[in-house]
Amino acid sequence: MTQLMENEVFKAFATYAAIVTLKMMLMGPVTVYFRLTRGSFSNEEDVARKSEEEKKKLLRSHPDVERAQRCHHNDLENIIPFFFIGLLYALSGPELATALLHFRIFTAARIFHSFAYILALPQPSRGLSYFLGMLVTFSMAYNLLSKVFFL
Amino acid sequence: MTQLMENEVFKAFATYAAIVTLKMMLMGPVTVYFRLTRGSFSNEEDVARKSEEEKKKLLRSHPDVERAQRCHHNDLENIIPFFFIGLLYALSGPELATALLHFRIFTAARIFHSFAYILALPQPSRGLSYFLGMLVTFSMAYNLLSKVFFL
Amino acid sequence: MTQLMENEVFKAFATYAAIVTLKMMLMGPVTVYFRLTRGSFSNEEDVARKSEEEKKKLLRSHPDVERAQRCHHNDLENIIPFFFIGLLYALSGPELATALLHFRIFTAARIFHSFAYILALPQPSRGLSYFLGMLVTFSMAYNLLSKVFFL
Repeated sequence: MTQLMENEVFKAFATYAAIVTLKMMLMGPVTVYFRLTRGSFSNEEDVARKSEEEKKKLLRSHPDVERAQRCHHNDLENIIPFFFIGLLYALSGPELATALLHFRIFTAARIFHSFAYILALPQPSRGLSYFLGMLVTFSMAYNLLSKVFFL
Repeated sequence: MTQLMENEVFKAFATYAAIVTLKMMLMGPVTVYFRLTRGSFSNEEDVARKSEEEKKKLLRSHPDVERAQRCHHNDLENIIPFFFIGLLYALSGPELATALLHFRIFTAARIFHSFAYILALPQPSRGLSYFLGMLVTFSMAYNLLSKVFFL
Repeated sequence: MTQLMENEVFKAFATYAAIVTLKMMLMGPVTVYFRLTRGSFSNEEDVARKSEEEKKKLLRSHPDVERAQRCHHNDLENIIPFFFIGLLYALSGPELATALLHFRIFTAARIFHSFAYILALPQPSRGLSYFLGMLVTFSMAYNLLSKVFFL
């Protein structure tokens, strides 16, 4: 058991995977923050103590909440494949330097992607960070499959 | 290989992770149930045998279906990070009692969260179970990173 | 470390898990393709260089984009549980032939599901492939829990 966590590639994967997972999780509280400050909720029970008139207003969608949700959703679509492929890749015994390069570029690309999304930075900043992250995952998948392919 | 499954912490993680994953998966059939009983579908081919008039009615959204989908989506946003962080945490050699405490609180919080969501229980029941689950994952992430940090 | 990747069941899991994860990831570019060809975007900054009139038209939703997104979302709801349960199942030492049967049926079912969804094939083609994939995951969960149950 502890053997796995003595391996440097696996320790590096655990560290970067935890960082991007925490970043993804933080989109939850970010959405809650926008819900509270913009007054935009999805569930009747969340606005139970308000008057009927206020309820109608508070149950409308708000562009800032929807933007945070799209950013969160994009994380799910990209960070989950990174974890899946990255875990198997880390177990397939890659060079430490190559593995670190993959993990670092992905982490930087996804952190930048979140800022680009929430702050609505001009394109192609968001698009490029999206494709860069995807490229890293494809590169790890190629490395993994070239080593363990067993259909 | 079998060594991993002889470790009690890893067996406990496998058990609780399987339980919350199955709970998350069950939200799919729950949504299908609401689609069928409430008559609310998203795809034309799902209502192909109906008359034109009926089709229009059946392709509208329904609050119960949307509520089940939001509940499912919230599971994705929270149970996936629990699995990612929890797997790495279980491999980092924690105390069995501490690990069990984390896994049990998270599992209880998320099962309660689903009931609170589907039955629209008064707040803050749903909100508290959401934050409690998140807290457990943050605590495991902190434990993990304090042991394996390798940037 | 390398021990894990010398195990045939684990190599098979790594291969099929990478294939379905790549398939899931590809739904991202498929959605981007429909956005570009159908002219349907979600973010103002994505259509920044267009005239005000064009912007309004381009920021509307389009059924083909929404269909690709629903297909992608269904993948998230089903391929993620397959990976979670499948990883733990592969580590619990199943027979190679049984494991391969599970991985192959799931992979075939989900690839067929995507074609059925995007091409809007008549039901119950999509419904059956959805339930078949789910059945495989339930079967692996049953096998796993009957071996490692530790509450």
